[in-house]
Amino acid sequence: MTNIKVIAFDADDTLWVNEPYFREAEDKFCALLEDYLPLHSVAAALFKIEIRNLPLYGYGIKGFMLSMIETILEVTEGTASLEMISKAIEFGKEQLNKPIELLNGVETVLDALKGEYRLVVATKGDLLDQERKLQKSGLEKYFHHIEIMSDKQEKDYLKLLKHLDCKPEDFLMIGNSLKSDVLPVLQIGGNAVHVPYHTTWAHEVVENNVAHDNFSAIASIDEILAILKK
Amino acid sequence: MTNIKVIAFDADDTLWVNEPYFREAEDKFCALLEDYLPLHSVAAALFKIEIRNLPLYGYGIKGFMLSMIETILEVTEGTASLEMISKAIEFGKEQLNKPIELLNGVETVLDALKGEYRLVVATKGDLLDQERKLQKSGLEKYFHHIEIMSDKQEKDYLKLLKHLDCKPEDFLMIGNSLKSDVLPVLQIGGNAVHVPYHTTWAHEVVENNVAHDNFSAIASIDEILAILKK
Repeated sequence: MTNIKVIAFDADDTLWVNEPYFREAEDKFCALLEDYLPLHSVAAALFKIEIRNLPLYGYGIKGFMLSMIETILEVTEGTASLEMISKAIEFGKEQLNKPIELLNGVETVLDALKGEYRLVVATKGDLLDQERKLQKSGLEKYFHHIEIMSDKQEKDYLKLLKHLDCKPEDFLMIGNSLKSDVLPVLQIGGNAVHVPYHTTWAHEVVENNVAHDNFSAIASIDEILAILKK
Repeated sequence: MTNIKVIAFDADDTLWVNEPYFREAEDKFCALLEDYLPLHSVAAALFKIEIRNLPLYGYGIKGFMLSMIETILEVTEGTASLEMISKAIEFGKEQLNKPIELLNGVETVLDALKGEYRLVVATKGDLLDQERKLQKSGLEKYFHHIEIMSDKQEKDYLKLLKHLDCKPEDFLMIGNSLKSDVLPVLQIGGNAVHVPYHTTWAHEVVENNVAHDNFSAIASIDEILAILKK
């Protein structure tokens, strides 16, 4: 990959741990409702409500909190105690206050790339939450800025490139989601690198064996350095 | 004001009606709890909780919804019916689905400025919600992009200018909030124009008679055209 000028990093589960925290919150939430439904059925009800609310709320923890609350209303058919609502809010706030755990190799990679490329964070989710995480991570100094995207479909990447004043062929996206970080970027003529993470939200899972000139899959983020030299 | 290159418009209550919708939701919410507390005391409790949650949730309707729910838990000391929680969610969703009502003169002004300046929307709140409003407004074609700011303090404007690659003296911010759209911009050497709106959220109110070379106050947004020619 030569001629790359801008490298955009997905944030959650690419730079730092995220999905396991959602799973942890989800597990506690399902346990809360286990008198009403088996755990896996609560999880399924929550997922359904999250997806239904996605067009309205977008991605991020606040939307997740509101969906947990709605799930309580639906699953208990209005018979829950207010204590449950209070717990759901508590789980969400805990999640917003989680410490940041960097993934292996991230800092080495950023240190090697800074100065050579314009580095940005390109993420879905809440701006405030992502800014806070970036600040806590100590990685702020490596990035030009954070790009919050309301979604990561082709049209959103086209908007991003216009905003960054960058041609698709000069753009590289690195992330853990084939669906969000790779496929739409390749589709508009950009470059993409997939670094899988062990836990992926069901909504982000796609079956796809990508084969494309502008694509590489790596097992660990530090392999990116060799790829950029090719 | 000469040499201006980038003009940033605040969105809510500068381009379109917003605060009255919050007031409407707040009134309905207070009425919901009037068996527990007088209306103005509910409003005060909600405001207190909103401000307490602001560092964690940031600005926007989802945070407002979560704060309404917390207010129910606190005010009723856990004795509310789940129906009330359901209502609070309904009020928030209604608000997210409101139609867009442009303020007078907005489209004329944007039409006159486009091509001459780089126009952006610079707003607090949720990206998805603001993007949806911009789309509904029909004003998308006038703007280079939306800048979502987690807050509008001096440090946030410095970040914005770095991101826009724009010098403070080439930057003009137009908005209805002295506190958020005017004072911090003047403080960092930028230009600002205040277009007051009849309703302002208590959190945005400041007492200030601004007198500054880079500042103008106008009664209606179309007066901006004359100011830019001066």
